Amino acid sequence: MATTAASVTDTCLRAQAAARELAAVPSTVKDAALEAIAAALVDRTPEILDANARDMEAGREAGLTTALLDRLQLTEARIAAIAGQVRDIAALADPVGEVVGGERLPNGLDLTKVRVPLGVVAVVYEARPNVTIDAAALCLKSGNAIVLRGSSSAARSNAVLATIAGEAATAVGVPDGAISLVAGGGREELAELATQTGVVDLIIPRGGEGLKNALKGVATVPVIFAASGNCHVYVDATADLDAALAIVLNAKTQRPGVCNAAETLLVHADAAPAFLPRALAALRDAGVELRVDGRTRTLAGAAVAADLLDAADEDWDTEFLELTLAVGVVDSVAEAVAHINRHGSGHSEAIVTGDVAAARLFERAVDAACVYVNASTRFTDGGEFGMGAEIGNSTQKLHARGPIGLRELCTTKYVVRGDGHVRS
Amino acid sequence: MATTAASVTDTCLRAQAAARELAAVPSTVKDAALEAIAAALVDRTPEILDANARDMEAGREAGLTTALLDRLQLTEARIAAIAGQVRDIAALADPVGEVVGGERLPNGLDLTKVRVPLGVVAVVYEARPNVTIDAAALCLKSGNAIVLRGSSSAARSNAVLATIAGEAATAVGVPDGAISLVAGGGREELAELATQTGVVDLIIPRGGEGLKNALKGVATVPVIFAASGNCHVYVDATADLDAALAIVLNAKTQRPGVCNAAETLLVHADAAPAFLPRALAALRDAGVELRVDGRTRTLAGAAVAADLLDAADEDWDTEFLELTLAVGVVDSVAEAVAHINRHGSGHSEAIVTGDVAAARLFERAVDAACVYVNASTRFTDGGEFGMGAEIGNSTQKLHARGPIGLRELCTTKYVVRGDGHVRS
Repeated sequence: MATTAASVTDTCLRAQAAARELAAVPSTVKDAALEAIAAALVDRTPEILDANARDMEAGREAGLTTALLDRLQLTEARIAAIAGQVRDIAALADPVGEVVGGERLPNGLDLTKVRVPLGVVAVVYEARPNVTIDAAALCLKSGNAIVLRGSSSAARSNAVLATIAGEAATAVGVPDGAISLVAGGGREELAELATQTGVVDLIIPRGGEGLKNALKGVATVPVIFAASGNCHVYVDATADLDAALAIVLNAKTQRPGVCNAAETLLVHADAAPAFLPRALAALRDAGVELRVDGRTRTLAGAAVAADLLDAADEDWDTEFLELTLAVGVVDSVAEAVAHINRHGSGHSEAIVTGDVAAARLFERAVDAACVYVNASTRFTDGGEFGMGAEIGNSTQKLHARGPIGLRELCTTKYVVRGDGHVRS
Repeated sequence: MATTAASVTDTCLRAQAAARELAAVPSTVKDAALEAIAAALVDRTPEILDANARDMEAGREAGLTTALLDRLQLTEARIAAIAGQVRDIAALADPVGEVVGGERLPNGLDLTKVRVPLGVVAVVYEARPNVTIDAAALCLKSGNAIVLRGSSSAARSNAVLATIAGEAATAVGVPDGAISLVAGGGREELAELATQTGVVDLIIPRGGEGLKNALKGVATVPVIFAASGNCHVYVDATADLDAALAIVLNAKTQRPGVCNAAETLLVHADAAPAFLPRALAALRDAGVELRVDGRTRTLAGAAVAADLLDAADEDWDTEFLELTLAVGVVDSVAEAVAHINRHGSGHSEAIVTGDVAAARLFERAVDAACVYVNASTRFTDGGEFGMGAEIGNSTQKLHARGPIGLRELCTTKYVVRGDGHVRS
């Protein structure tokens, strides 16, 4: 059952005790719990909608923006979709117990490296109440106890969702305390959660820069920060220009507010005269604001000239997250790579090329989580990568780089079996 | 060539530039560089001994302990041994480029997850000058640029060693700046190094608690702290008592000052009457100070009674790192597991048992990097595990758990190849 009255520390200690039991709970029980959660969400929809209506009302009184209210709002259809995602997670392979390596050592010891849960994962998130269930389902499937800390604006919705999930899970044998929500959305609770060294094994923040900075200042337990994405599409001299145009349009416009959307287009000087007039017109027609360097402006052609803005230095470093694109011309793959390694955030970077050597250089030299050859940056996503759901996307290099799925919510353990072996 | 005059920041920026080139340098060149380093160490032994003699002299004047002076001292034989280790590292498989996963996605995209270097690894270490070469060789083999920061007491030795390694490596095609030593062993240089966000990808401290705490206070770049080890041997009811005795003696006495030595012996009550008198006498005869609980004292027998001390509460949490052992009696495997999970540091834990169910419970429920069944904890070591050399041992759960070898000095990158794929 979800805890809403205990202190943050007590909640975390209960989660740790639950985690130690949960690590040994077999997949059948975890999957039955996920199925029970999905069913309970549907069965108890009126209860959820009632709590959500009170959050919405308070949100309107507090003057939340329409966008925030939309994130906060649950509907029967949205709840059904959340339940569907829980069933999708149940259908994934269990990462726990997967043997990831091992051998018989020369002395006869049998060494096995096996995947095991991290233990207690804390997820700190902002308005969207669906994260309560998504994150709980991913942690449960990967054998981790979860401590949730949502925002105060969704407190009633989150409390009901966490209670429903906790009750459904414990009813089929998941240890009590495996799914908890800490009460209080304040900075003090955040600091208490972020300093549970030896109890909380990982904190994953899902929210904006303010939340990240608040955590950076106080956290003593490990944090994986969700990525920002300053992503590039580079159109090489030998690119198929139709493919290049489709990829640029997709990477920029298909969903501009997400971290794997493109923010800068780089074009090789040899392709620029044919490509730029066409591409810039298409982008403009798609509603994209274009901030261009001098060479781009020269080659853009008269049809779009009036619609171009001059790129400022900071535009090359900006994650616009809206229909704005910086555009520049380069003289080589190497120059494109250097630009990307200097300005990019190491998220997702694409080359469009017909040249094997260019592709090979780009793949190797670009320092990013995901490098694309002749494909849109928009594919960086746990679902697209066949990992099922994801709890975020990492641009850090340690532990997890790229989508954070079930495996990335685990650590490993060496099991070494002998016959009385001692070291000489 | 090693940098000893530039600022820490400049050194790190040069290392980053070198790292980007080094990531694409093939194994043949890296192995040739390692061979060249090994040869140069032998060829230039007089130069190394001369610098080391000056460090030793300064150390004696500064009143360093005999133990510290021994760590600091290099001899012709020690230099030859260091060169041998470099050749051993050259003989290991290159982790860079290893494909660790991948598949053809349903939409036809080819997804490949490939191992790539971290980039710039900083190693901060205390007196032992051999770390200069060991760490440089491991980083070079794994395609990482290294920034070394040793202690001031070994400054002359470290400078010569880093210069020799850097010169030998660049002579065969390793980028300049791949092996650097920062001058100045002060806290300011440490803080400057530990805050190179976006430039230094990982700091590995090799030293005592003082060094760790100094880093914890200032580091903004990721740190993997070398482990402390409060390791246990649990002798189960069904243990082969001869094997149990051999394992306990080995785990405690074979090299008591290291992190994988045992600090606590737990004995099942059913085995205790037969095992304890014999084991305690053998441990005492091996020079081990015994700190025991009440039940152990009762069962120990007259022959050792006079040699037993009462265990204090803090003894169960202490990494003695010397010939001292806490000893307790438990009533079940579950009680042993609970004790270990409460008091252990998650390093290396052993059960001695003849019972399959007990072994299985212990393997699963103990939360540690390495769990042993019928073997000594002393095997936790990159060399013993077939990983070749190691740069330390991790008890943290993220990124690397257990020995940190060449693979753990890497991250991964997704390479995604398509035919103009866009996301719908």
